[in-house]
Amino acid sequence: MLKTDAYGTAAGSEPLAPMQITRREPGPEDVLLEIAFCGVCHTDIHLSRDEWGFSMYPLVPGHEIVGHVAAVGDRVTRFKVGDAVGVGCFVDSCRVCEYCAAGEEQFCNEGATLTYNSKERDGRNLTFGGYSTQVTVDQAYVLSIPDGLPLDRAAPLLCAGITTYSPLRSYGAGPGKKVAVVGLGGLGHVAVKLAVAMGAEVTVLSSSPSKRADALALGAHEFAATADGKVFTERAGQYHLIIDTVSAPHDLNTYLSLLRVDGTMVLLGVPDKPAVLAATSLIMRRHTLTGSFIGGIAQTQEMLDFCAANGVAADIEVIPMSGINDAYERMLKSDVRYRFVIDMDSLRAPAAA
Amino acid sequence: MLKTDAYGTAAGSEPLAPMQITRREPGPEDVLLEIAFCGVCHTDIHLSRDEWGFSMYPLVPGHEIVGHVAAVGDRVTRFKVGDAVGVGCFVDSCRVCEYCAAGEEQFCNEGATLTYNSKERDGRNLTFGGYSTQVTVDQAYVLSIPDGLPLDRAAPLLCAGITTYSPLRSYGAGPGKKVAVVGLGGLGHVAVKLAVAMGAEVTVLSSSPSKRADALALGAHEFAATADGKVFTERAGQYHLIIDTVSAPHDLNTYLSLLRVDGTMVLLGVPDKPAVLAATSLIMRRHTLTGSFIGGIAQTQEMLDFCAANGVAADIEVIPMSGINDAYERMLKSDVRYRFVIDMDSLRAPAAA
Repeated sequence: MLKTDAYGTAAGSEPLAPMQITRREPGPEDVLLEIAFCGVCHTDIHLSRDEWGFSMYPLVPGHEIVGHVAAVGDRVTRFKVGDAVGVGCFVDSCRVCEYCAAGEEQFCNEGATLTYNSKERDGRNLTFGGYSTQVTVDQAYVLSIPDGLPLDRAAPLLCAGITTYSPLRSYGAGPGKKVAVVGLGGLGHVAVKLAVAMGAEVTVLSSSPSKRADALALGAHEFAATADGKVFTERAGQYHLIIDTVSAPHDLNTYLSLLRVDGTMVLLGVPDKPAVLAATSLIMRRHTLTGSFIGGIAQTQEMLDFCAANGVAADIEVIPMSGINDAYERMLKSDVRYRFVIDMDSLRAPAAA
Repeated sequence: MLKTDAYGTAAGSEPLAPMQITRREPGPEDVLLEIAFCGVCHTDIHLSRDEWGFSMYPLVPGHEIVGHVAAVGDRVTRFKVGDAVGVGCFVDSCRVCEYCAAGEEQFCNEGATLTYNSKERDGRNLTFGGYSTQVTVDQAYVLSIPDGLPLDRAAPLLCAGITTYSPLRSYGAGPGKKVAVVGLGGLGHVAVKLAVAMGAEVTVLSSSPSKRADALALGAHEFAATADGKVFTERAGQYHLIIDTVSAPHDLNTYLSLLRVDGTMVLLGVPDKPAVLAATSLIMRRHTLTGSFIGGIAQTQEMLDFCAANGVAADIEVIPMSGINDAYERMLKSDVRYRFVIDMDSLRAPAAA
């Protein structure tokens, strides 16, 4: 076993603090990553604090992991020592069910093994996330970070990137399509960049008028503040696709009214209260409401390649590992543009750094 | 103008009663139908009684109209006197917008002219529905009733048929697909027959265990009573498509849990209260919730041809025009298997019958 420095918590009521965990020695199919950066996802807060009621402790968050290959098992063919690689939201799955066979491992019938707060497939050990210096992962669940993508700004793509890329691709964002991105946070800012890179005409809808300049700087063609409600009459029936990244409660019916006939609205955020939905919001103009959940390994690699080819990466604020609790507090106030990324060198002993 | 016998109401508070209306003389593009039968849709009740707040009086309901051509205008090429024809939910539209051009006239940007409770496109006269002996309709909005379809049993296809056919086609009902039909009423019973004819494996979900025999007789492969809730665990994640015809409030989240990954649930009924929807019901298994609204003229004709080719027609109870108020009361108790159809000969003077 490999003793590994990490930041985690032993209970939902406690802040994150240094701890030591163990990683498995790389088996024949395994890649050992020396972690360079780990993005900070809102899910990390929910799970650290057991806000969804299924956290398992000790818990080490982090599923936006990038680093370099430090060692590989005998049968590893896809990676060699020194390669820039990433790990996203899951690290294993059954590999044989219809969804795994289709490359949609996130829907594995046995449940994908999540990067943290999951049981390993042998049912014994917990998985620990990327707030740590190294991690051992089966090569089938490791992504290549293409040349040209800065590692730190690539980290958030492993979750925020694939979460937005997948529905943009599924619902045809591209030339001639009007796409609205609701909410300009960690997910929303990547959605804007991706949709623009795909050639769509992109509008940012935000309750914060102060985000206009940022939206346009990110490449959005238009910005509309939602607070005064006029947007919902002025832009009624205009959009082919709405990517809704907001996790605060909001009226889905008013947003659905912005869709064209046969338009689709994709929910990515999970408000803590259910929404109220009128059937007529879907029926009368044949609108579709759907959700999307990360993406499979193949599509995640496709997304990374797309980002490298199109110069898309997250806008980030790099923090040391010791700054994580403060970062959580700032995230709860939406005070980050647009993703915190932990520089994992800050967790290494000076001699190893 | 053609004086025409009809049944209608001058106010939402009054029962339907005989009245006389006028129809326009057939113009060059018009077809004059001698109405043989008119199906009774639940919408007729809502609009007769102004339950949706936008009824215009006097109001003559009926948008499931079949009959024979009695006269045609000079430029009518598609129909000749004596042809069996039908008229559905709309009788005109702008003809030039993108939706009309795409054959989806129901979504006309100017609003389709509905068969009743609408203004004619000149903005002067109200349209009157099929609870009457004749109607004048532009040939572009008239359907052919194919040989082999009994006229009385074809009438409900003009609304209930296309309403269910359209989403079954859009979402791929066919061999290898598991389709659940929720609710076995006017829409549901046609949905079952159509989905079975398309080759899908069909389950009826109903709150009335007494409908099991009917469901199987209609061709459904399985029936499940929803009252005890077990169905939602036993059948979780099984269905590719759910056609939800229920207009009483019900928990969409529990029905969504029956879908496979990427499965679609289509709302056709309009409960008088909005539903409560958890974002996770859509996100975690990438479920889609959508609605569907009748269909265009081209698809309506396709549906009628499909029904004739596959022996699909509505199960009906034929009533005289004078029985309409009693029929409404029975419909409100779901006491009809499965659609009332008015025999319009009952409204004709004995000499004319």
